[in-house]
Amino acid sequence: MSSEVVDTNPYSRLMALQRMGIVDNYQRIRDYSIAIVGIGGVGSVAAEMLTRCGIGRLLLYDYDTVELANMNRLFFRPEQVGLTKTDAAVQTLSDINPDVVLESYTLNITTVKGFETFMESLTKKDFGLSDNGSGVDLVLSCVDNYEARMVVNQACNELNQIWMESGVSEDAVSGHIQLLIPGETACFACAPPLVVASGVDERTLKREGVCAASLPTTMGIVAGLLVQNALKFLLNFGQASKYLGYNALKDYFPTMDLRPNPQCSNSVCLERQKEYIKMKPVRDVAAKAKMEAEASNSEEASLHADNEWSISVIDDCNLDNTITGRDSESLPEGLARELPDADDLQRPQTTEDTVAFTGDLEDLQKQLDALNAA
Amino acid sequence: MSSEVVDTNPYSRLMALQRMGIVDNYQRIRDYSIAIVGIGGVGSVAAEMLTRCGIGRLLLYDYDTVELANMNRLFFRPEQVGLTKTDAAVQTLSDINPDVVLESYTLNITTVKGFETFMESLTKKDFGLSDNGSGVDLVLSCVDNYEARMVVNQACNELNQIWMESGVSEDAVSGHIQLLIPGETACFACAPPLVVASGVDERTLKREGVCAASLPTTMGIVAGLLVQNALKFLLNFGQASKYLGYNALKDYFPTMDLRPNPQCSNSVCLERQKEYIKMKPVRDVAAKAKMEAEASNSEEASLHADNEWSISVIDDCNLDNTITGRDSESLPEGLARELPDADDLQRPQTTEDTVAFTGDLEDLQKQLDALNAA
Repeated sequence: MSSEVVDTNPYSRLMALQRMGIVDNYQRIRDYSIAIVGIGGVGSVAAEMLTRCGIGRLLLYDYDTVELANMNRLFFRPEQVGLTKTDAAVQTLSDINPDVVLESYTLNITTVKGFETFMESLTKKDFGLSDNGSGVDLVLSCVDNYEARMVVNQACNELNQIWMESGVSEDAVSGHIQLLIPGETACFACAPPLVVASGVDERTLKREGVCAASLPTTMGIVAGLLVQNALKFLLNFGQASKYLGYNALKDYFPTMDLRPNPQCSNSVCLERQKEYIKMKPVRDVAAKAKMEAEASNSEEASLHADNEWSISVIDDCNLDNTITGRDSESLPEGLARELPDADDLQRPQTTEDTVAFTGDLEDLQKQLDALNAA
Repeated sequence: MSSEVVDTNPYSRLMALQRMGIVDNYQRIRDYSIAIVGIGGVGSVAAEMLTRCGIGRLLLYDYDTVELANMNRLFFRPEQVGLTKTDAAVQTLSDINPDVVLESYTLNITTVKGFETFMESLTKKDFGLSDNGSGVDLVLSCVDNYEARMVVNQACNELNQIWMESGVSEDAVSGHIQLLIPGETACFACAPPLVVASGVDERTLKREGVCAASLPTTMGIVAGLLVQNALKFLLNFGQASKYLGYNALKDYFPTMDLRPNPQCSNSVCLERQKEYIKMKPVRDVAAKAKMEAEASNSEEASLHADNEWSISVIDDCNLDNTITGRDSESLPEGLARELPDADDLQRPQTTEDTVAFTGDLEDLQKQLDALNAA
């Protein structure tokens, strides 16, 4: 990846992030593999952004074909109508940046056969330097239904795979992104999805001949926030958000932490939670060492307005936006649950160990790697 | 614009906004003309979003050509290298949606000749039903430098043209959008641009061989917020933001109102301010009539959690995020001015009439139309 400042270098403006001190090592992006599940209004734009950023490898999953009714969102073009979304995406993306390794999976992950292929593709380790449990560094869920999200959740819990979820409401004017770290944050079964309250009754959407609304603006913004969060997480700059909502009508962007539900219905999630609790002493030692190093590096650092490593003492104020499982009374103002309560899900109890995570994500990655290697 | 729910209808998901009660009359978008100045990382994506939304007419202004160094942002493709950005954009946009009337102006608005053509094109009234002073309904500024923004500002002040400004910082991790209504809000000369503090010294960017950083994520998000604001403003749904910032590192989105500077260096701005003050009795009567109509329509409306028309009594708390001219001490936390103080700009005095706008935008449009017709 050249950092030469010439008009013919497609990476000059990205490598400038390094020169400007935003990213320590931008070129690391060439080593990363990202799986995008669902190549619709959000997933296709996310794929294009990552392709233009020079990501190492993209795995694309969708079973659908391009229709004229998709033209009100970005990415697909009318001449691609009839192609599968994965084939059309590979066509466009390989034209834009031939440096990216593209893998196309035209399948439905919610079928038994589709799920098998999905799992196999995620664990294939034929690319890059990644040493985590799976063969990819991040999974981005850009699907449009509950069932597919539960399948991605199951796969990522089983593989101990960090992933990010995204969604746009059926009335097109709100959306969200969410970072899910097995064992540490709520999994998708711990806390069904939250979207900014829209007042639309989902049942009215399922009638014959009625379709959901969508806007290229909302889809583009959610894709942008999702990929920005992925870049921050993988390239270790800024603060990756655990949950970020978007209410288009009021330009309101709530954030919060979602802690795991100790009574989660997903048994693999419960295992991951136990593993996470078991590793607490390791995290404590690492956090302490880091704080001491920081303190000795610069005495004035603790007085600085910026808090680069996001290390803070947790007091009650920090917990305002921290939600455990289905504790719906603690939802920030303006948020409502997208889906009805699952009957089998009971109000969870907070345990001592499921505190909000406020440490460094690179550190966490190392700890998870250690867990995977064990 | 058909609202039929079939795979072959490119507008079905947009017309669904009407059925879902988000937008009263979506088809009105076919009557609107929007000028986009600057077809770069933000402007090109804004143009694509509006094209896919089915906007009536787009006027595109840029003098630059497509380079490989632009490939890290969305929209342009490597095979378009060497074409002017306006020609490349028209090529792509007309393929995506042949229903949109596209006008391409390959010129530099900061030259005398370019400014003349710019003004002529904005006042041409050969499209749609718009009855305001100019021939377009909105100008979107997507330029990347101060001089060009001052030129757009001058043109819009002269034409009494409502416009929106956008910008992305040189380190690619913050941006903003801003709504400018001549006489009512700060013009660009009243209050030089605000961006979320980035800590980058602009002088270090101008050295030989050094280029600004850019990211497709930040550009896509700012374009999305800009067009979303334009849609809210033109189609009269939700609340159009006067100023919305984006800090990517912290996922922080500050909003505020910017009031005009009574000592603005732009003489046309001062005229527009006088006109706005003169129309205060008209606005007061209209606002009172509207409040009474609302109150009589439904007694419980005033108790409702939603405040659809954003009508509120202004007290001190509402003014927290309201900034007059260069009153830099009142900047919300995390914001710093992008440009140094202009020497000739003095701290303005607040006048009674420059209160924060909290009324209905459609109403305001009518009043401005009345002013224009006068």
